[in-house]
Amino acid sequence: MTAAEVNAFLRQVYPELNGKEPDYHAIDVFPGGCTVRLEAGSRHIRPGGTVSGPSLFTLADIGGYVCVLTHAGADALSVTTNININFMRKAEPGPIDGVCRILKLGKSLMVFDIDIRNGSDGLTVAHATGTYSIPPKRIKTPG
Amino acid sequence: MTAAEVNAFLRQVYPELNGKEPDYHAIDVFPGGCTVRLEAGSRHIRPGGTVSGPSLFTLADIGGYVCVLTHAGADALSVTTNININFMRKAEPGPIDGVCRILKLGKSLMVFDIDIRNGSDGLTVAHATGTYSIPPKRIKTPG
Amino acid sequence: MTAAEVNAFLRQVYPELNGKEPDYHAIDVFPGGCTVRLEAGSRHIRPGGTVSGPSLFTLADIGGYVCVLTHAGADALSVTTNININFMRKAEPGPIDGVCRILKLGKSLMVFDIDIRNGSDGLTVAHATGTYSIPPKRIKTPG
Amino acid sequence: MTAAEVNAFLRQVYPELNGKEPDYHAIDVFPGGCTVRLEAGSRHIRPGGTVSGPSLFTLADIGGYVCVLTHAGADALSVTTNININFMRKAEPGPIDGVCRILKLGKSLMVFDIDIRNGSDGLTVAHATGTYSIPPKRIKTPG
Repeated sequence: MTAAEVNAFLRQVYPELNGKEPDYHAIDVFPGGCTVRLEAGSRHIRPGGTVSGPSLFTLADIGGYVCVLTHAGADALSVTTNININFMRKAEPGPIDGVCRILKLGKSLMVFDIDIRNGSDGLTVAHATGTYSIPPKRIKTPG
Repeated sequence: MTAAEVNAFLRQVYPELNGKEPDYHAIDVFPGGCTVRLEAGSRHIRPGGTVSGPSLFTLADIGGYVCVLTHAGADALSVTTNININFMRKAEPGPIDGVCRILKLGKSLMVFDIDIRNGSDGLTVAHATGTYSIPPKRIKTPG
Repeated sequence: MTAAEVNAFLRQVYPELNGKEPDYHAIDVFPGGCTVRLEAGSRHIRPGGTVSGPSLFTLADIGGYVCVLTHAGADALSVTTNININFMRKAEPGPIDGVCRILKLGKSLMVFDIDIRNGSDGLTVAHATGTYSIPPKRIKTPG
Repeated sequence: MTAAEVNAFLRQVYPELNGKEPDYHAIDVFPGGCTVRLEAGSRHIRPGGTVSGPSLFTLADIGGYVCVLTHAGADALSVTTNININFMRKAEPGPIDGVCRILKLGKSLMVFDIDIRNGSDGLTVAHATGTYSIPPKRIKTPG
């Protein structure tokens, strides 16, 4: 799956994630990982002008999901079992990129991490590690 | 602060968290913790009828914030530094309660955990542990 | 399995965990959890007289393992997939107790948490959450 | 500080970490991180020939400590506040390397992650993220 195919799939499966202009989307898919982007606007901002923690968490969760989709098959039923996220710097409105890396792709679990960076200055604002559970049947399904 | 005072404060500081009817609110405050509730409706649901991971993460984050507010002072500038969340069962639409416990309240950090349970059957659907950083000045400020 | 049976099993399977006098042992097993103890002596102490983080981590890991043993069957092949641990206070030499609670016991994963407390003053010194992977075959095996 | 200086310091401050031949040591220090090594022998092995989780956790903890030492000053009193570790593959006896990266070095907290890899095949066997608390006074002290 290409980034464009991923985005079409996300729009179909998770219509509530995005308004008319998608807030969250994939911008790159590569062997062993992907890059996802949050276009952080007013609905993601907290007092002080910082992008909210839940918005960054959502980006991490989507990054992991795009890794599953593109590396284990288009299975909308895989579920997140764990995410650990560290918030490190103020995340600023505008594009925020999450670079995801698959640490393990096993039969039933995928482990990934994601560096989340301000588009403006490239600084890491958050880092997360997570696990997706992959239902046994679907691992054989072509993506 | 009572739960009602907390909710008035949250509505003022985080107007974007809730629509006209608040989705997230405090229902109890007690020494060493609090209980927060998500009224999970269509905007929190994912395919398969499950409440989304980010919605449960938001509840965990708010639970920690209400603990800071009520035990360290009404400081809107305290920030989450880490949250680790495990998702364990399908979370169902309707009320979802998060019972928060302060594990440590230090000078600069507060550590808490939260059991997140379906209102319908009382089963734990997720569990999170998190840390809030408390800015030095405000620890002396009365809430 | 009783706590005594668990300790006999641990001594057999993990002889290297303990010297002649066992450092780590189970002191109680109950439905949904267990209590494990570290007898913290000089080999577990760091500069400043604090029990080391790895010693507390080992107690958390053993607590989860005792939960698997006693609730899913005596399967020496189950493995830890994730542990998140927060260190909160100085842990003191002497007995340190870990009270473990099973948050989920599924077909292939067990999620637990553990409160780790000084025996001396009962204060929580660390808290961990973890996941054990349970191999499919052994879930049916009687413990 | 060079890797050799770090190792001399570790031997002095943590004599219990290592036997006559050091099990844990720094092999490289570079701007923004370091590489640490566990020489995994019989005392680190679990049934099935796997290096134990606590041994890998100890490597992660030491990796973070070496980052603090070399980037924030030689302060033996800094303490770990949180570590989240994912175990992904069987870790094999022999050298196991942990490549550490500082994600944030703030006034009072340092956040890092570490990729832990088998020396034999270079595969990632575990990944951890952690936080060290840095006491206020010592941040100004030259290392």
